[in-house]
Formats: sequence, structure tokens, C-alpha cells
Amino acid sequence: MVSLSGAHEIAGALRDVPGPDVVSRDAAADRQARLTKPAGALGRLEELAIWLAGWQGRERPGLDRVHCLVFAGNHGVAARGVSAYPTDVTAQMVANFRAGGAAINQLCRLAGAELSVIPVELDRPTRDIVVEDAMTEAECAMALQAGVDAVPEEADLLLLGEMGIGNTTTAAALSLATFGGAASAWVGAGTGVSDAGIAHKADVINAAVERTGRSLGSAFHLLRRLGGRELAALAGAVVAARHRSIPIVLDGFVSTAAAATLVADNPAALDHALLSHLSAEAGHRRLAECLRMKPVLDLDMRLGEASGAAVCLLVLRAAVSTHVGMSTFSEAGVSTRDE
Amino acid sequence: MVSLSGAHEIAGALRDVPGPDVVSRDAAADRQARLTKPAGALGRLEELAIWLAGWQGRERPGLDRVHCLVFAGNHGVAARGVSAYPTDVTAQMVANFRAGGAAINQLCRLAGAELSVIPVELDRPTRDIVVEDAMTEAECAMALQAGVDAVPEEADLLLLGEMGIGNTTTAAALSLATFGGAASAWVGAGTGVSDAGIAHKADVINAAVERTGRSLGSAFHLLRRLGGRELAALAGAVVAARHRSIPIVLDGFVSTAAAATLVADNPAALDHALLSHLSAEAGHRRLAECLRMKPVLDLDMRLGEASGAAVCLLVLRAAVSTHVGMSTFSEAGVSTRDE
Repeated sequence: MVSLSGAHEIAGALRDVPGPDVVSRDAAADRQARLTKPAGALGRLEELAIWLAGWQGRERPGLDRVHCLVFAGNHGVAARGVSAYPTDVTAQMVANFRAGGAAINQLCRLAGAELSVIPVELDRPTRDIVVEDAMTEAECAMALQAGVDAVPEEADLLLLGEMGIGNTTTAAALSLATFGGAASAWVGAGTGVSDAGIAHKADVINAAVERTGRSLGSAFHLLRRLGGRELAALAGAVVAARHRSIPIVLDGFVSTAAAATLVADNPAALDHALLSHLSAEAGHRRLAECLRMKPVLDLDMRLGEASGAAVCLLVLRAAVSTHVGMSTFSEAGVSTRDE
Repeated sequence: MVSLSGAHEIAGALRDVPGPDVVSRDAAADRQARLTKPAGALGRLEELAIWLAGWQGRERPGLDRVHCLVFAGNHGVAARGVSAYPTDVTAQMVANFRAGGAAINQLCRLAGAELSVIPVELDRPTRDIVVEDAMTEAECAMALQAGVDAVPEEADLLLLGEMGIGNTTTAAALSLATFGGAASAWVGAGTGVSDAGIAHKADVINAAVERTGRSLGSAFHLLRRLGGRELAALAGAVVAARHRSIPIVLDGFVSTAAAATLVADNPAALDHALLSHLSAEAGHRRLAECLRMKPVLDLDMRLGEASGAAVCLLVLRAAVSTHVGMSTFSEAGVSTRDE
């Protein structure tokens, strides 16, 4: 049972995390080399099948039990006019998720994932990070625990995403504090603000990070001082999944920024994670580079709500179906290379 | 009924080709703007849904009847040692396709496409293009017609791919003659030849194109003098699909090179086509640039047999499922932008 009630607890939970099962991973790589195709010809599909085999601990991974968790939260900083939409939209979109009308509903149905929507105290926005810390320690611990509690005991894969008006600003502030650089490098249009709006977002996150300083030291302090409830919950889910050896697929900029805070405690914290896609939101490419992770897809998407993760699940299904279903050269009676 | 018995017939068949239904396309674009997401936030998925709507002639496109056609052929030039595999493998892989053991079988099952494998006279390899034309006019016309005949009268989408030991060399020769440049820019490792093998392939295609000259003027002459039977068949299928207003998805380097010959007759010949993925085979990026087409995926794949096209079908299903299934802002009671 993972409990994440403070900085010490997160650091502890990330200290002795399980790695992949290298025997299963190597067996999967051996199998790939015997399938009826030139070695490496399925490219990323081969890598993904082998990666899944390692984290699932079996030569032939499966994707029967895939859960999609979408965390929602509201942000005090939204009052500064950093979004093109009013904050009511967070709750309205949660209702839309529950009614089945959002993009993620269609994509989960198509890709075969069970969707859970976890609103984290929508009626209690975090405090305005320009002037004070987003959450108290107790509030942040509760949000982290909401994420831990949302992770099933067993699963083949988790897709993690979020919804929260104003949260590209929060994610940019977290990224600035985690990885440094210029504020302007981390901000983008979000749901669709103008160039002036983007400049305003940069001013806002600069002010927030000037207030806290950049050396926050741990995921807990980053999330508590600059984050959001849904981002803390998402980070909690990443940690819990690791302890249960469940591989995860991160959605776009906001999800990656939340998960990336964990590398402050352990550089290997995201080894069980995949970046589903390169978001069109400006800071995501840089975030992927900082994490040395290569997104699977690049479809110019920037919706959030786990939509990129769900499309990525389709590619993972292609990886697993070829890995498990193809014949080997000897089974099919196909000649191997001229040597 | 499309008949492609010579250069004149292809040019004629490509002269008056139907374009997309702009009314349906515009209606689809209008619908995208009303769905519960920021405008453009689904990126390429939105573009793909709108593109399909135009070619299928309905605001809400469907993907119920998707056919995958894999054309196979053998190449005299393979005797020059341009492949890592013996030519027997073409027929062996056709048997593997029929037995269900290849990558494309798993991917078609996963993505919901009906697979047809069309061997085009495997026991009659084309002639060695270094010393003589690959086919006679009658042979090329027969191969083209095999492609035309393989296209169903009605379909929502076609996936087009190929199999043929030696055919990355043939495709490189076609690309060199169609678009010019240095031979070395068009050749890659194919099924896995060494650096010396790649240099040898460049010499081979240089010799072939020195023999024919680069100004072959029409798809028919390109395919007949430098092509292969499966490549001519694939080009024939592209033309037939256009006349039936069926959108198509091209696989990788070889499929694109075959289809690209058609732009010699009409620069708009591939408006109904999508490049499924950027192949890891060296010449494909250049080919995509020459055609001004942006591949949907970049997964480092280089297998052929329509495998990239089948993975792309999964993305098209994501595009259609969101386009058709999502609620509009007014249906869901979600507030629109602050303006």
C-alpha cells in the first residue's frame, strides 16, 4: 500500500522502486528476432512490445485490462485570465465525460480502455500561485492519495490524463521550476489564447517561480507550491502504478509536467512510463527532451483528457498483436537471410 | 470501367478525375468547430476526418468497408544481389499471408480491414532493369489491369501495400527517374543489406536510369521500363480507386514510389491518397517532400506489406470516432470561449 503524505513519503516511495523484468524483456526481444520480418523492420512497434514485456513480466504481453484515469481540478491562477475558457468548463467537461460526449469517451471505446474520471475537489480551486502556495501540505497529500487510490490493484496498462481550465499555466510553472530555462519556452496557447495571452502566461509563471525560487528539491514541494490537485493526483498514480509494476502511458504537456516532478526524487521514476504523443502545446517538446523520452505519435494534438494516450493505446495494440500473433520463420517455412 | 492498356490510357484516365465533394468536406469542417474541444485541439485527427468526408462525400465518414490490397511480384534485378533475402521469399511470404502468420494479418484483424493478397505472376520476374526494360507494353498493361481489377466497386477506404524481394531497388530506380537527384539519395538498406550493399544498389539504379534516361514522360513508361509487376498493379489500383472516389492509404517507400509515377501524368493524381507513415527506408522522406505529402505516423517501420497503412487505419478510426461520436458544445451544455 503506497501512502504519499509528504515530501519524505514520496522520496521514500521512489527510493526502492521495482525495475522491469529483464528475463521477460530479453525473451520478448529474442522472439521478435524470430518473427517473419527482417530484424527491426517493425521499428517502434518492436520496442514497445519488448518494453511492455519487461514491465508486465511476461514474454507475451497482453492488453486486456487497460484503464484510463482522467483527473480534473480547478486552479486559482485561472482568475488571472490565462485561459480562453471560463473555469466552469472544468465541471461541465466532467459532466460531458460522464455523459459520454467527449473525445476521450469515443477514443476509450475504440481503443478498449475503461474510463474513470476523478474530479479532485473541483469546488476548491488551488490558491493563486502568483501570491501564495497552491496547496497546504495536507491538501497536497490528499490530492496525491486520490491518485494512488484511483490505481487498480492489477492492470495491464494505465492511460493517464487530465482536465482543468488554467492548467497549462500550472504545468508551465512546474516545468520552469523543475527544469529551469526561460519562462517563455514553457508557455503556449493552451485552449487557444492569443500571442498577448501567451506573453501574459509567461509573466504569470515567472512571478510564481520568483516567489518560490527554483530549487524546490522534491516532487512534493513542487506540486504543493506550484501545482494543481489533478496534477498531484496524476503524480500519485504514477508512483502507485510503479509499485504495482503497471506500465503507464502519459498524455500530453500537462500530464508529462506533473509526472516529471517525480524525477526530482528519482531520475528513474518514469522508466515504466511512455510519452504517448508530442503535444502541439509549446513546452512539450522541451519537456520530452529534458526527460530523454521519445513520444510515440506526433499528430499536432493538444486536447488533454488522455486523448493522446488513448490514440497511443491503438499503436500499442498493433505492437502486441504482431508480437504475439506472427509466425516465426521456422513455423512459416520462410527462408532466412542469405549469409 | 477503367482500362489501362498503355501510356495514352493512363494519361486519359488521369485527365478527368473526380475531386473531393467540397460540400461534404465543408460540412465536416463546420461540425469539427462545434464539437466539445478547443478548435483544432485534435490536430491531425480533425484534418483526417475532414479529408475522409470530402472523398467519401458525406459529412460523417464511415470505415465499415475497408479493404487492404497487397500486391506481390518478383524482380529480375534481384539476381544482382541487391537484397539480403533470396527471391523465393516472395512466394513464401505470400503463403505466409494466406496462412495468417505475417504482420499484415495481425494488423488487418486488429484494425478491421479485409486483406486480399494479389500475386502478379511470381513465376515470371521482370527483366533485369540494368540491361533491358522490365516489361513489354502488354506485360505492363496486364499488371496495371490486375490492380484495377483488385479494387472493389464500393469501399470506404483502401490500404495499398506490396511484397517483392528486390523491390526497394526498383522503387529507388523509379524515384530517380521520376524526381531526379543523386542515386545515393534514393537507396537504403531495404530488408537489411550492408553499407557496401547500399552503394551497390546505387550503382545498379544509376546504370538502369542511364540506360532509359530520366525523361520518361508518363507513368506507363516509368513503370514499364523500370518498375515491377506489383508496382504497376498498385499504380493501377490507385487510378481505379480515384475513379470510384475511394480514398486510399499508401504504405511506405515502395508503395509511394509506385503511386508517385502517376504525378508524371497529373500533379493532382494523389489528392485522394494519404501517406500512412514515414518509412525508415532512406528515400521515403525525400519522396514525401517531392509529393508535398505529410506522413501520418513516424514509427521507424520499414516492412512493407501494407503494415504502415494498417497502423494508420487505427488513427483514421480515432479520427472518425471522435468526429462522429462527440457531442457539440450546445448538446453537452458546455460553455464556449470567453470572447
